[in-house]
Amino acid sequence: MGKRLGRQTVLLSMPPVIRGYAAVAGKKEGEGPLGECFDYVSEDSYFGEQSWEKAESHMLRQCFSLACDKAKLPPSELDYIFSGDLLNQCISSAFAMRDTAVPYFGTYGACSTMAETLSLGAMLIEGGFASRVCALTGSHFCSAERQYRFPLEYGGLRAPTAQWTVTGSGAVVLGSKGKGPRITHVTTGVICDAGIDDVANMGAAMAPAAHATLTAHFADTGRSFEDYDAVFTGDLGAIGHDILQSLLHKDGYDTGVKYMDCGMLIYDVKTQGVNSGGSGCGCSASVLCAHILPAIEKGIWKRVLFAATGALMSPTSAQQGESIPGICHAVVIESGVE
Amino acid sequence: MGKRLGRQTVLLSMPPVIRGYAAVAGKKEGEGPLGECFDYVSEDSYFGEQSWEKAESHMLRQCFSLACDKAKLPPSELDYIFSGDLLNQCISSAFAMRDTAVPYFGTYGACSTMAETLSLGAMLIEGGFASRVCALTGSHFCSAERQYRFPLEYGGLRAPTAQWTVTGSGAVVLGSKGKGPRITHVTTGVICDAGIDDVANMGAAMAPAAHATLTAHFADTGRSFEDYDAVFTGDLGAIGHDILQSLLHKDGYDTGVKYMDCGMLIYDVKTQGVNSGGSGCGCSASVLCAHILPAIEKGIWKRVLFAATGALMSPTSAQQGESIPGICHAVVIESGVE
Repeated sequence: MGKRLGRQTVLLSMPPVIRGYAAVAGKKEGEGPLGECFDYVSEDSYFGEQSWEKAESHMLRQCFSLACDKAKLPPSELDYIFSGDLLNQCISSAFAMRDTAVPYFGTYGACSTMAETLSLGAMLIEGGFASRVCALTGSHFCSAERQYRFPLEYGGLRAPTAQWTVTGSGAVVLGSKGKGPRITHVTTGVICDAGIDDVANMGAAMAPAAHATLTAHFADTGRSFEDYDAVFTGDLGAIGHDILQSLLHKDGYDTGVKYMDCGMLIYDVKTQGVNSGGSGCGCSASVLCAHILPAIEKGIWKRVLFAATGALMSPTSAQQGESIPGICHAVVIESGVE
Repeated sequence: MGKRLGRQTVLLSMPPVIRGYAAVAGKKEGEGPLGECFDYVSEDSYFGEQSWEKAESHMLRQCFSLACDKAKLPPSELDYIFSGDLLNQCISSAFAMRDTAVPYFGTYGACSTMAETLSLGAMLIEGGFASRVCALTGSHFCSAERQYRFPLEYGGLRAPTAQWTVTGSGAVVLGSKGKGPRITHVTTGVICDAGIDDVANMGAAMAPAAHATLTAHFADTGRSFEDYDAVFTGDLGAIGHDILQSLLHKDGYDTGVKYMDCGMLIYDVKTQGVNSGGSGCGCSASVLCAHILPAIEKGIWKRVLFAATGALMSPTSAQQGESIPGICHAVVIESGVE
């Protein structure tokens, strides 16, 4: 049974184990600092399909299959799949999973989806509803650009504050038994809207949500940065990272070198032309599965706070003058616990 | 702790109670057979807002507030909110809930969202993660038409097989304690794609998913139609209803008069010009909260199977020649259990 700690956090007393995981990415991500770490890098932005939407779906399916393989689990033995993405009506997830015959929960947490799906999957296992769950998500630069911004052919200039949607996917297979890193806490975000309405500055829009979730997590658990070997936000980029750091310093937190943002890790922000850094559901998902989880397994970090961030807007809400609500969901991942 | 029954169903041994619920609807729905049953009917399709998207969000927020009031619970005492809708990036839910300061899980199950949110909310309560959860969703005819089909001003003719998106919302407050109907079983759907690619015939696309979930529920629980006082599908409409009935009859099930579809109950299908019937997240949600739950509380029905249906497509997937994947999630709602 889960135990509630404070307003937003639950402690998992029989923490679900990460049995397997995989990350798939595109060419540009393959040329970045984590290029060697992905399970598969596609040189073809279409992933062999006829459209970018189908490519995104193909990538999710491939990532899901790799994660199941690495967990040594046939997909048919999964009890639930949680998935979601940025495309309208979350089609890349639904089409990727349509032939699995596994009970399916669609989620929408924008770029926070990796942490949302891990949160729900972990709670269903801890609650005795499932023994094996897959949590996955992804995003594709080309499908996101044409849905959210401009046709790629238009070649529009990007604002210095803008981020680059990651072509990438991450999938995690959680189980009730086995060896591996475990999810020990789930901190669920509340929606935060600081009034930012610049859709070319998502980092600023999401930083207050990350701040709210991290400080709630610390308040609920009595922990702080010193209790973690590393703390990651999802995709604030360089600008959002700096804003969050300022907000945390004002509160008296010493973030030190422990605080990192997945959007700054996946690209070389100085040379790859991504402006403020990476974004998209696939950003935190692929960094988790290509970089963070392997480092935990290697013993480089023992206890990590993974806080994925999302902007809950749409082009329509932006055009109608609405500001950008943000959300941040967090999970604690730890090795060496039983 | 939840107990798994078979492949898709869990039995809730300490079944969460429905502490309060509310339904809000539009003018056309107010003129239908359930007109007297809604908590509020808006004569204004804009709900006092400047756009239909904002109207939809306003309606969800109003429905949420009414449900909390009827549950005698300040929103701040909720542990989680689960919500989702049909608009791109689920904006009507996110904007409706952005000021609640309650931990928020966004879901995407298309028109199956009411059952999906109830399923997840009930499991989190049963698992000890929460004491009070709100599950809600809704849809709006005008925002759905312009997003999925044509600008309303175009006045396009509708196919005889088409359905009418319900302007309506439903919200349910679940609790671990109290008196009222309870959720005793959760059956989670798998994605089913029978190859239908006619976006003007969603009933046909979703009926196979409803068939798969109902037969899985019966197989998992050892029950059949005779164990229920009433069985509802979400929004198959008249055509989908007939297809599902044929599929069930072929399997040897006697559906009798117990099987009803929410899309046929919310409108007078013969006189209201809705062709095959109602659809949209708000269809099953508002029928549940305006009609089904009050009837359970009055003792008209004691045990009901509520199976909401969704089509996991988008205009983009349809334009790219994809068929329409369907999903159906079901919950058992029962009075007189402790």
